[in-house]
Amino acid sequence: MKNVYIIGTGLIGGSFALNLKAINPDVIIHGIDNNNEHLSEALALGLIDQKATLKHIVNADLVVLAIPVNATLELLPAVLDLLPSQGIVIDMGSTKAAICQAVDTHPNRSRFLANHPIAGTEFSGPKAAHQSLFFNKTNIICDLEKTNEKAAKAMIEVFEAMGMNIRYMDATEHDKHIAYVSHLSHISSFMLGKTVIDKEKNERNIFDMAGSGFESTVRLAKSSPEMWAPIFEQNKANVIETLNEYIQNLNHFKTLMESDNFEAIRNEMKNTNHIKTILKGIS
Amino acid sequence: MKNVYIIGTGLIGGSFALNLKAINPDVIIHGIDNNNEHLSEALALGLIDQKATLKHIVNADLVVLAIPVNATLELLPAVLDLLPSQGIVIDMGSTKAAICQAVDTHPNRSRFLANHPIAGTEFSGPKAAHQSLFFNKTNIICDLEKTNEKAAKAMIEVFEAMGMNIRYMDATEHDKHIAYVSHLSHISSFMLGKTVIDKEKNERNIFDMAGSGFESTVRLAKSSPEMWAPIFEQNKANVIETLNEYIQNLNHFKTLMESDNFEAIRNEMKNTNHIKTILKGIS
Repeated sequence: MKNVYIIGTGLIGGSFALNLKAINPDVIIHGIDNNNEHLSEALALGLIDQKATLKHIVNADLVVLAIPVNATLELLPAVLDLLPSQGIVIDMGSTKAAICQAVDTHPNRSRFLANHPIAGTEFSGPKAAHQSLFFNKTNIICDLEKTNEKAAKAMIEVFEAMGMNIRYMDATEHDKHIAYVSHLSHISSFMLGKTVIDKEKNERNIFDMAGSGFESTVRLAKSSPEMWAPIFEQNKANVIETLNEYIQNLNHFKTLMESDNFEAIRNEMKNTNHIKTILKGIS
Repeated sequence: MKNVYIIGTGLIGGSFALNLKAINPDVIIHGIDNNNEHLSEALALGLIDQKATLKHIVNADLVVLAIPVNATLELLPAVLDLLPSQGIVIDMGSTKAAICQAVDTHPNRSRFLANHPIAGTEFSGPKAAHQSLFFNKTNIICDLEKTNEKAAKAMIEVFEAMGMNIRYMDATEHDKHIAYVSHLSHISSFMLGKTVIDKEKNERNIFDMAGSGFESTVRLAKSSPEMWAPIFEQNKANVIETLNEYIQNLNHFKTLMESDNFEAIRNEMKNTNHIKTILKGIS
């Protein structure tokens, strides 16, 4: 692996580039980005070795798509068209079904590895990139059987060298699960932020009274709308299902409050405390 | 200030005791707790100097109520009955209106300072206590005019020595605001945890796929039901109002998704990104 093209030089692409360079100092990182300011910043920060454009990927050993999922959907077929026969392209997106669907019959389908590292922060852009973003994070590889075995093996070795824990999943299953454990969290956080901002016209009150509890609950509401709106769009059916269940649970909680059934509320909370054990790890 | 009685020797009471001892090594910290195991643990951990019972507070210079708000509501009148004429009692609860109401006509009302330090973690019990819990946190004092001026001044000096930022508020106003910036966060977090646990029977999936985003959003769902159910009960009307608005915002978001209006969703999120600026502090 010599010539690596990172498309999208923000948090995810930039971190991947740094990490790859650290484990393999011989690679040349070529950066491609619609946003020329970001691209220059990525170069200045040493995330990439040089700027490039799409047409250069005819020389690529590896192409990494680290852009919003709607852009990946559009660009991936073109990348597969240009890719040399030994090259491989991976994406980093939070949705998988539509992207896999888009190239299902592409003659170079076997050169694509559908990939979702569960890593990220509420920050974005090249400045947010850091080398250890992926360490000890789960990386979900979807529909592995559709990728060329040798190419997939080489990428898996890279992910393992980065310290990622790899899991394999069907793309459709991935989108169902991830709606619950990631996409819904973002909506609940954004809507919590909205509810409080709408009500508390006096921002001083929010700042002073928020405490660390509110801050962590609303942290994801700092996330990039350019990244998240397309995720919700691509995973629409699953996300709407999770939202329905979430709203139903909130309505149920409200009904219990209205009927002064605080014993049932206490029990609901006790049952949910179980999340402690789950997040600590499963033995 | 010599004899201090901490009623409830968990996270809040224990941390307050440690902090008080650090700024004033001469105080004797007497611990009172229904839970004898906690009390012994608090003594072993050095949070308190000795065990005590309620009847001893006839000797108190300061009594700190650091127990669930329903217990405070019950106990506060009795504490005011027993308190010597120069003593003062403060509470630490997350609701203020009902508690203030309960002692509004008590002959010793002026010896009570209604108090809410916006500090805490999702952990509880004596082991969770630490000396710097209150440092740089907001402390809201309610209905200051109803407390003896000299007694209030002495307490305010203590809070300031602990590094707390003090704000003054009417008890009813406090409960309205805090419903938005604290109580609602807890419900949104608990119900998010419930939605995911109910759906993901395979806990391995939650653990592997959750990522740091879900973890921070669901952090408050680890909180103590014994503490939070009574808070929701005492602040019922305000909490139901916030829940209504939150559910309405979630339904609106869902409607936008159902009608494929992702442009509006992007805008909603952009507007809510403003929470970044608010939480960074207001210049």
